[in-house]
Amino acid sequence: SVNPDLASERQTASFSVEKLTAWLDGGVENTRTRRAVVEAIECDPVFSRENQYFQSQNERYEAAVRKAVHLQKKMHEMGWTEDGPEYKYISRAVAGDVAFLLHRIFMRSISMLGSDEQIAKWIPLASQYRLIGSYAQTELGHGTYLQGLETTAVFDITTQEFILNTPKISAMKWWPGDMGRSATHTVAFAQLYVHGKCYGVHPFIVQIRSLQDHSLCPGIIAGDIGPKMSFEHADNGFLVLQNVRVPRENMLSKFCEVQPDGSYVRWGSQKINYFTMTSVRISLLLDEVILPMMKACTIAIRYSVVRRQSKLKPGEQEAKILDYQTQQEKLLPQLAAAYAFYFIKDYLQELFDNGYREIQKKNFDMLPELHAFSSGFKAVITQYCASAVEICLRACGGHGYSLLSGLPSLYTKILASCIYEGENTILLLQTARFLIKCFMAASAGQPVPPSVTYLAAVKPRKCPAKNKLDFLSPDIYTEAYQHMAARLVSSTAAKLQELIQSGVKKHDAWNQCTVQLAQAAKAHCHYIAVKNFAETMEKLETQAGIQKIMKHLCDLFALHGIFSNSGVFLHDGYISGAQMDMVTASYLDLLPIIRKDAVPLVDAFDFTDKSLNSALGSYDGHVYQRLYEWAQKSPTNEQMSPAYEKYLKPLLHSKL
Amino acid sequence: SVNPDLASERQTASFSVEKLTAWLDGGVENTRTRRAVVEAIECDPVFSRENQYFQSQNERYEAAVRKAVHLQKKMHEMGWTEDGPEYKYISRAVAGDVAFLLHRIFMRSISMLGSDEQIAKWIPLASQYRLIGSYAQTELGHGTYLQGLETTAVFDITTQEFILNTPKISAMKWWPGDMGRSATHTVAFAQLYVHGKCYGVHPFIVQIRSLQDHSLCPGIIAGDIGPKMSFEHADNGFLVLQNVRVPRENMLSKFCEVQPDGSYVRWGSQKINYFTMTSVRISLLLDEVILPMMKACTIAIRYSVVRRQSKLKPGEQEAKILDYQTQQEKLLPQLAAAYAFYFIKDYLQELFDNGYREIQKKNFDMLPELHAFSSGFKAVITQYCASAVEICLRACGGHGYSLLSGLPSLYTKILASCIYEGENTILLLQTARFLIKCFMAASAGQPVPPSVTYLAAVKPRKCPAKNKLDFLSPDIYTEAYQHMAARLVSSTAAKLQELIQSGVKKHDAWNQCTVQLAQAAKAHCHYIAVKNFAETMEKLETQAGIQKIMKHLCDLFALHGIFSNSGVFLHDGYISGAQMDMVTASYLDLLPIIRKDAVPLVDAFDFTDKSLNSALGSYDGHVYQRLYEWAQKSPTNEQMSPAYEKYLKPLLHSKL
Repeated sequence: SVNPDLASERQTASFSVEKLTAWLDGGVENTRTRRAVVEAIECDPVFSRENQYFQSQNERYEAAVRKAVHLQKKMHEMGWTEDGPEYKYISRAVAGDVAFLLHRIFMRSISMLGSDEQIAKWIPLASQYRLIGSYAQTELGHGTYLQGLETTAVFDITTQEFILNTPKISAMKWWPGDMGRSATHTVAFAQLYVHGKCYGVHPFIVQIRSLQDHSLCPGIIAGDIGPKMSFEHADNGFLVLQNVRVPRENMLSKFCEVQPDGSYVRWGSQKINYFTMTSVRISLLLDEVILPMMKACTIAIRYSVVRRQSKLKPGEQEAKILDYQTQQEKLLPQLAAAYAFYFIKDYLQELFDNGYREIQKKNFDMLPELHAFSSGFKAVITQYCASAVEICLRACGGHGYSLLSGLPSLYTKILASCIYEGENTILLLQTARFLIKCFMAASAGQPVPPSVTYLAAVKPRKCPAKNKLDFLSPDIYTEAYQHMAARLVSSTAAKLQELIQSGVKKHDAWNQCTVQLAQAAKAHCHYIAVKNFAETMEKLETQAGIQKIMKHLCDLFALHGIFSNSGVFLHDGYISGAQMDMVTASYLDLLPIIRKDAVPLVDAFDFTDKSLNSALGSYDGHVYQRLYEWAQKSPTNEQMSPAYEKYLKPLLHSKL
Repeated sequence: SVNPDLASERQTASFSVEKLTAWLDGGVENTRTRRAVVEAIECDPVFSRENQYFQSQNERYEAAVRKAVHLQKKMHEMGWTEDGPEYKYISRAVAGDVAFLLHRIFMRSISMLGSDEQIAKWIPLASQYRLIGSYAQTELGHGTYLQGLETTAVFDITTQEFILNTPKISAMKWWPGDMGRSATHTVAFAQLYVHGKCYGVHPFIVQIRSLQDHSLCPGIIAGDIGPKMSFEHADNGFLVLQNVRVPRENMLSKFCEVQPDGSYVRWGSQKINYFTMTSVRISLLLDEVILPMMKACTIAIRYSVVRRQSKLKPGEQEAKILDYQTQQEKLLPQLAAAYAFYFIKDYLQELFDNGYREIQKKNFDMLPELHAFSSGFKAVITQYCASAVEICLRACGGHGYSLLSGLPSLYTKILASCIYEGENTILLLQTARFLIKCFMAASAGQPVPPSVTYLAAVKPRKCPAKNKLDFLSPDIYTEAYQHMAARLVSSTAAKLQELIQSGVKKHDAWNQCTVQLAQAAKAHCHYIAVKNFAETMEKLETQAGIQKIMKHLCDLFALHGIFSNSGVFLHDGYISGAQMDMVTASYLDLLPIIRKDAVPLVDAFDFTDKSLNSALGSYDGHVYQRLYEWAQKSPTNEQMSPAYEKYLKPLLHSKL
């Protein structure tokens, strides 16, 4: 039975949830495959997350290893292969907390950076789990700036070995996943020295633990870096290397090699390394960021029609909290953004696939654009989603703050994504560098990629909207975003040039513009996201019911962005104060319209109760019963606390 | 020895740190007292937080009870009394994780709502810890809207008892602290019924656990609500009441009573209840919100001069990350806000003290203003500080995400404060209701409290600033904030009236304006905070060195607010686009100026290393050594995980 307050929300849907789900999946066939994978995983007790919120870091690590090992079996049993249609749904189905993710990166780095001999030697061992790999790049004192890594690898010509050292405390490897307790091997990045000359950072395969008894190898100190906000299941580790010797063949040598006589040879392009990062940044967005944010929306919206609080109208029963304008204004823009980002992921994937096709033809022209887009969107989407999940959490009041809501762990997980795979500010500045270059080129009449030709067209203009309904036109608001992004890029470029012309050194001038450069990069991504939402929605004309609600969401996403960043639109008078009042009116008008379909819109995401793992967000809406049931399972209720005998009883029974 | 990068920051302070500390403490005498209290607590091993980040919920609860019990002894030993000068520093010194906070609220509610007989009976028992009290108001299904509480207390005239019930699952008490495992008694709020008539919510003293063996009393089901984002040490509990009988004398009866014949008598004013909430909201701000935010600033700023990353100038060594404009723009506005809120707390305390003096003279005129200010500032400050700590955490990159940085627990603690003691949106709307009333009154020429007379003076005006230096004038920016706040209040009042005049019902019209009402309430608080900072700083004229840096911080706080909320200043043309460019320029110019004193400015907060409990934020700056030392103590490094024998070994040794 479903809570009647939730059930009634489903009876009035303006569209078919099943059809929307199929469209989001890219076809009903995909929906069927996805559901089959999810069901196979969820009916297997090894993958249960029932006790997740009660487990210690040690217990979660143990469970994650168990799941990872079991997953191999499961895939074999089910006939799921890396090329099969099921593969991409596995990570959604297991919903995190699986070990050996870095083992995959270990393999990927050997495949991409290793010679044919190295691939032939290591990949079979790794894929058969005769070793467990990790990827040791980040150091205690160095993250994003790879050139600054302090680990050294000195070539010893007499023994034909590299001698690896982390010569000071800040040089030790720190953070690599799977390294704290699991890995037997790692790809360690170190400054290569031959005959006293430094050749920069290179990757080396290093064994760190015995394959016999898992003890640390000579010269190795390694362990777990301890508790974190989330990822308790992952054994992020530290690694000290003290004169660790590896044979010459262990330096990954697809692009460069130290030959037996110590001569250093390099061939091929290093640029392709960007491509790995690009690929990782795009692929993490869906599973690690967008899907978790969609889960948070599902939980918060379902809860908000079950929870009743205070009276909206005198004499009536207490109102569903989603009927309050302030609650709608918290949650519905996040829902619209969830759709926007789900669509952007397709846009980025297409961009990537096109680029990859070109690269296979040895055309690297698209690399800068790909790098800029993947960096910028990684930063913008992770930031937006982290803040969205925090909003969802707080919108559920006290119960959102309970781990049993599922929201705290979604938040802490997404928060990490703002930091890993490139710190967001640095990524935004990389996007900005690309935009400034393109702006300069476009201004000088040189060709630029189609996605940024708009930068050439900056001129003082006014938004033509005359009333609030005009702001429901995708042309009107897309144009406004475009104008705003182009203005921010061009005005920052102008400031940069002025500073340089006034005698400020180039790097100082750049630093003095970085706050505005980051703002410009965000504005560009926001524009692309709005434009892409509008285009995606317009392609839907054959499915009128779905298109109508997608249009509302697209409008909401766009107008919420203008309402929340009104300053950048008002600044040069493109939008006037009176027009901003129209934006506000149209924006607020959309809230009660979308509110009617809010539950069907999250139902269409098609998350199972097990994958939400939330006492607040289940399909049946039995919020209070579930909170009570789950709380009773908490280890804090297992027995009377020893604190009673030790401290409370003596206190209560003392004669003061 | 101090890390040289940190040491050098202290040599160039533009002011005396010791003098600033004394000024912040309100005199050197207070500094001495505070330090003595902190030292006495920190040298006592019972209060150690050394293992805090490694403990389970059970362990933290046990430690919290132990500390609370020990604190009684300690206070007795040290001669610290509730009236003494040391008292207010105790909670800062123990830095959280102490049980029995709700025991105090239990006592406070009896003192405020109980009759003289009730006080004489219960207060001595409670203060001698012959019982442990809790405060059971919130229910599983009801928080802020007290009228909706579902627990019932039915008067049985034959036995002269009240029969208490939580008649459905949503009625059970949920969240009260100290109730899950510690409390023997509680003040439970229930709907009073006499002869079938409901008299609304009243408080009743109910015993829930045996004083002999701590077992649950008949008719009681109680336990812990399980894991939360923070407050693991607190046993937030649930409580089911099934025909629990308490004598007639257990209804707190200072203001109303059920007499033996069942007649209900009420005397005195209920308004005074607001005053308790007002007092709690103001008193929680310093210890639970502002001090934690100041700690986060201390940690992030110290770390940002030790951490070096990438090169700012070609050929030089890697730069301190605080030398990047983007890092300054993240952290320094938070530092300025920390000072702003530290000063606002004094402002609110003074308002409260004045109000209290009047109330003692039976003059309740200031209650609405006090309620509005305490609500609004509670919402604005908790929201701002939560977001500030998140910024600090992320500004420390990966290491900020480690629990060992201390930042995650500061964040999760402040996040809770956005939810408890009144949900922030609801509080803002209460402030807005007061502002709208005052605006209407002022417009009609009626008298209003001095703090809101400015609302009467809304008219179209232009900011007189002519260049970027003009925006460093407190008159200029305070005026801008005042204009903006008044405009938002008046335009929302106008919208409200229009809606009502167009036939929309009053409550619907209110709901349709709540997004803008909340915005207006925030703007009002922001204005008062800026004004109060400027006034506080201007009073400092005898201490030129400190005044100078405070002036910079005040400017930064004000200009950052205009820069970040530019839309509301640009909207009606009060500030033009060209002027906004001046604001931006002045704002960005301030960053490198304040950056020079950033470390001395956080040193002046005078937090000990133990109270920061952060591997990144210690006074000596030995960040990497401490991270490594602390990580090694993690239970994840105690022994080889059982996962090796169970899962890894069979996998590695299997012949696939």
